[in-house]
Amino acid sequence: MDNNKFMQMSIELAYENTQKSKGKPFGAIITKNGEVVAKGVNDVLKTHDPTAHAELQAIREASHILETSDLSDCELYASGEPCPMCLTAIYLANIKNVYYAYTAEEEEEAGLGTKYFYQQVALPLNERDTKLINLQKNYQDHNPFSLWIELNKAKH
Amino acid sequence: MDNNKFMQMSIELAYENTQKSKGKPFGAIITKNGEVVAKGVNDVLKTHDPTAHAELQAIREASHILETSDLSDCELYASGEPCPMCLTAIYLANIKNVYYAYTAEEEEEAGLGTKYFYQQVALPLNERDTKLINLQKNYQDHNPFSLWIELNKAKH
Repeated sequence: MDNNKFMQMSIELAYENTQKSKGKPFGAIITKNGEVVAKGVNDVLKTHDPTAHAELQAIREASHILETSDLSDCELYASGEPCPMCLTAIYLANIKNVYYAYTAEEEEEAGLGTKYFYQQVALPLNERDTKLINLQKNYQDHNPFSLWIELNKAKH
Repeated sequence: MDNNKFMQMSIELAYENTQKSKGKPFGAIITKNGEVVAKGVNDVLKTHDPTAHAELQAIREASHILETSDLSDCELYASGEPCPMCLTAIYLANIKNVYYAYTAEEEEEAGLGTKYFYQQVALPLNERDTKLINLQKNYQDHNPFSLWIELNKAKH
């Protein structure tokens, strides 16, 4: 069955990423109509980019190749259950079905868990460990949101 | 005061991104020791990359320039309150203080809200609109997590 084939490919990507590149053990594949469109591995250690998770890398590549940010006709296979950054990216890309192998619990046991991030994101803004501080907006004449609304009204 | 100066710079980036590039009205700046290290704007419409939010672009650039994924000595100025993808990236980058101008409510009013994503991310896995389907792992001999644990034990 294709689902299992793509899942095993993602796991193999994860394994090779650790074996060959000493990278974190995560891989992801995006398919469309049963064909592989893009692949990604966790490149955080190699690139220093903390956002270079396997799923994000695959979404970036797929959107580049397909020239659209709407991947609603695609499916994602992630070796591990996605963190909230990648999960939100999945929503932003309109991906409706995500297959994964290793669970959040298995990630925690391997020291690779993202439970803390899920907890933090679910908290009200002023209860989070990272401080989010609202500053005053001084540009009354350069309001980016007003400009955006004006431009988009003009289109209709 | 520097905080307000950097905030206004982020808002101006957002404004220019819409005015000059017809991009979404978001900008972000990362500073270290009171100096600008990296800038980002929302490049989603230009690049098709659904993950190209201003904060993510700035984090990527800062980690590349500083050659580290640990931005704990940096501060982030975002023109708009971050979505959960960017918020998680902020945690992954160890950024402790985030300043923002436009609130989540103002984003919703402008049709640019991310309330739905916050709601979805906070739900248990099986209650989300996007289906997360756990598939069996067939590679008993190629377990990426076991390999990762083994490699990291060897280091100590």
